[in-house]
Amino acid sequence: MSHSGISLGELAVRFGCALKGDPHAMVNHVATLQSASSDAVAFLVNAKYKTHLATTQAGVVVVDEAVAAESPVPALIAKNPYLTYAQIASLLHPLPHYPAGVHPSAVVDATAIIDPSVHIAPNVVIGAGCQIAARSQVGPGCVLGERVTLGADTRLMANVTVCDDSVIGERCIINPNAVIGSEGFGFAPDALNGWVKVPQVGKVRIGNDVEIGASTTIDRGALGDTVIEDGVKLDNQIQIAHNVHVGAHTAMAACVGVSGSTTIGRHCMIAGQVGIAGHLSICDHVVITGKSLVSASIRKPGVYSGSLHVEEAATFRRNAARFAKLDELAKAVRRLAVRHLPADDGDKID
Amino acid sequence: MSHSGISLGELAVRFGCALKGDPHAMVNHVATLQSASSDAVAFLVNAKYKTHLATTQAGVVVVDEAVAAESPVPALIAKNPYLTYAQIASLLHPLPHYPAGVHPSAVVDATAIIDPSVHIAPNVVIGAGCQIAARSQVGPGCVLGERVTLGADTRLMANVTVCDDSVIGERCIINPNAVIGSEGFGFAPDALNGWVKVPQVGKVRIGNDVEIGASTTIDRGALGDTVIEDGVKLDNQIQIAHNVHVGAHTAMAACVGVSGSTTIGRHCMIAGQVGIAGHLSICDHVVITGKSLVSASIRKPGVYSGSLHVEEAATFRRNAARFAKLDELAKAVRRLAVRHLPADDGDKID
Amino acid sequence: MSHSGISLGELAVRFGCALKGDPHAMVNHVATLQSASSDAVAFLVNAKYKTHLATTQAGVVVVDEAVAAESPVPALIAKNPYLTYAQIASLLHPLPHYPAGVHPSAVVDATAIIDPSVHIAPNVVIGAGCQIAARSQVGPGCVLGERVTLGADTRLMANVTVCDDSVIGERCIINPNAVIGSEGFGFAPDALNGWVKVPQVGKVRIGNDVEIGASTTIDRGALGDTVIEDGVKLDNQIQIAHNVHVGAHTAMAACVGVSGSTTIGRHCMIAGQVGIAGHLSICDHVVITGKSLVSASIRKPGVYSGSLHVEEAATFRRNAARFAKLDELAKAVRRLAVRHLPADDGDKID
Repeated sequence: MSHSGISLGELAVRFGCALKGDPHAMVNHVATLQSASSDAVAFLVNAKYKTHLATTQAGVVVVDEAVAAESPVPALIAKNPYLTYAQIASLLHPLPHYPAGVHPSAVVDATAIIDPSVHIAPNVVIGAGCQIAARSQVGPGCVLGERVTLGADTRLMANVTVCDDSVIGERCIINPNAVIGSEGFGFAPDALNGWVKVPQVGKVRIGNDVEIGASTTIDRGALGDTVIEDGVKLDNQIQIAHNVHVGAHTAMAACVGVSGSTTIGRHCMIAGQVGIAGHLSICDHVVITGKSLVSASIRKPGVYSGSLHVEEAATFRRNAARFAKLDELAKAVRRLAVRHLPADDGDKID
Repeated sequence: MSHSGISLGELAVRFGCALKGDPHAMVNHVATLQSASSDAVAFLVNAKYKTHLATTQAGVVVVDEAVAAESPVPALIAKNPYLTYAQIASLLHPLPHYPAGVHPSAVVDATAIIDPSVHIAPNVVIGAGCQIAARSQVGPGCVLGERVTLGADTRLMANVTVCDDSVIGERCIINPNAVIGSEGFGFAPDALNGWVKVPQVGKVRIGNDVEIGASTTIDRGALGDTVIEDGVKLDNQIQIAHNVHVGAHTAMAACVGVSGSTTIGRHCMIAGQVGIAGHLSICDHVVITGKSLVSASIRKPGVYSGSLHVEEAATFRRNAARFAKLDELAKAVRRLAVRHLPADDGDKID
Repeated sequence: MSHSGISLGELAVRFGCALKGDPHAMVNHVATLQSASSDAVAFLVNAKYKTHLATTQAGVVVVDEAVAAESPVPALIAKNPYLTYAQIASLLHPLPHYPAGVHPSAVVDATAIIDPSVHIAPNVVIGAGCQIAARSQVGPGCVLGERVTLGADTRLMANVTVCDDSVIGERCIINPNAVIGSEGFGFAPDALNGWVKVPQVGKVRIGNDVEIGASTTIDRGALGDTVIEDGVKLDNQIQIAHNVHVGAHTAMAACVGVSGSTTIGRHCMIAGQVGIAGHLSICDHVVITGKSLVSASIRKPGVYSGSLHVEEAATFRRNAARFAKLDELAKAVRRLAVRHLPADDGDKID
């Protein structure tokens, strides 16, 4: 948690910021505007929190130019303050690094090829034919099946399960209890015997710089693979079914479910609890708001909403506002119908 | 599972009930009205199950005064029969208690401080600087990161992951495969490099008497902590994002998702599959019905519903009833419009 | 992954197909129409993929009679091509079989009765009184509590938790990180002390040929048992609450939540993210479309939909289509009301 400290001048140079304040002042951690002390870096992005700027005791705040003049403490002036804050925070708070080596309680198959710089924690199980590249870290209780490949600098947190033949790229983070490569959900109906299992012979392929949340599950392909491209960020408790393809740099918030064989484009943002039906295609640069149900392909970039079925978000907002007064609306229609339609017609609205 | 038995008289005294029947009769377990034998305690709360009372063979039934007269078997008369039943059942069916000591297959860091009365099951991993207080029980396959604190009498079931710096209070129950303290979902967009990780430097703090369901995930704070206050009950597969604050004695049913930095009050009840957006505030004593989407703060106690956005439950019920006849309503409007509006206007409704 | 190969003639005989092509040609795996080589079996069911038939290089395609004439390669002609494909794929790609025996790192209670043909993987924990029948396989990191019963030929993948007293039948597959038999969510409100735990003294009983998805959770009963009948297929991240009863051959897609004491019939199909309230009864042969909320019992077979509350799918589709134009509808009503209702009445629609 603790960093030995860095000067404001060095931060300004490293991250290309203008500095208002003493370049020799030192900081060693990040904190909120309210709680920051003089050795902490704070930031302000959301105007809602601006009231806290006047009273902050931070060693420095990361802000944009417009706000810098109002800061009572030193300021690092950035074009994209949140991004600069993220970079500074990553420097001051790197993820912990564990020593190289295989813990004696781990059970590693003799045919696995593990770079000597890799950390294998206690009670890990690694199957035949696995390959783990330099500096990767496999946390306590993780299970790797057979022929699993991990790229360099990838971290599996704890109790993660990675099933046979999965391929995971470089610099990925897989959070606790996630499951990669579980059986897809495929059954053929048989009048005599109920459901007959369809073997799931594809695998999961995950690119570089992917983060996968706690208890998220990604099924192996039925035929062909389930693919998560570079830079994808998946929050917790997401379900990715067999043969889904998620394009690069797409982010999904928690509890999203994506059904089988659906393709999602690059740079999409899918909010929490969204459900996406199977065999659909969603193009690049699509935003879907929380809890929406996507039951048809989306061919045009934009913002989409809707829990009945998605529509453009602006249309949905208008319709949802009307829904909130639907009872009043229906009563007006009834009054109109009683006066202005044949008698038996008005009766249909009760 | 088996208790040596207790007399009806002693139950009446311990739990402040009136007893109709022989105080010396003995019971040793709980059962349903239908399946109970003469050594079992049953209860009746829901009027729907009253038909089973006439034929029950229970040793005693826990009921309220109004129903007691109809019982064909001894009755413990309680003001709050379900609460009294819960107390009796807890006496007759305590959770199993495992012997003190650390199983030889567990891997416990030398710097961890573990009370000698604690039970550490097989294949547990406990990191540096952990502290576990008296009589706590850590089930098989659980992983505690570094500097995790467990209060007295807390139980972690099996395959639970508790990440670095998490604090869990006394008498908590954490069900299997739950994850406490995973990385929050924070990324800064960067035009060049996609998403840049924002370090999650806060922790999770959980109060006393909290129960957390199987596969529920609670992320650590980004800056500052994620907080679950005393007496909170979380069902299975719930997602609590970074910096959420859940007030004391709030209960959430399964599959709820709460987005980052939202504050939920005390004594709230959130039903299954509800989604709550980020940066909101929900006051005390709010009830939210199943599958609702909460996209704005709630400032007034009450019952709220709605899958488009929540509104007061009574309003929602009326509107939802209208939705069920929306097609009929629209047809009536079209008929009216065709007759009573300029021609080009009626065409808008097809 | 690799099978030594089988002739088309033998496939035709085994699975009762007509064969168009050389009965001596050999195949050894399955693949898609596009990627298949001459030693692969492909299939065509969905007309959407028919364009790939003309150019396939598969060794054989499984098709129905109508399509067979168009195949440029040998064809196995089946009444139900998807079922026949599933059977062939299962023959060519059996799930891996692990050797009998208990890995030395597993911790197995001395009172557990384990058939000598069973495979117990590394770091498994098996409690007192468990019984595991012939040829079952318990994967790495799995935890079985006390008195758990597994039938013959059942597979627990990895990091699965099965709590005390659970009963699992024959030929089941339990995917990674699933939880069987966790505490049900039962609490009695107590004005003084918040929530008082209601002991969950029932168990989970699972029939034969059941498949359970990754991170799915099934709670033990409160009083009486939670029951999953023969042939049920549950996808990932499903939540089954205490005392739910799921009838034989019912299938549920991912992220479904079923609340306590609800009974679901046989041969139902529940799509993804559906929520089902507690204490309901759903009859046999019910289909529920994705993300629906079931808040009342369903007594008639059919297809049901709706995120506000379910209704017959055809009605829902009509109403949802109207919702998509609700703002237009409301404007028309307002125009009508302004002209044809008393002044103060039209004002109610804004």
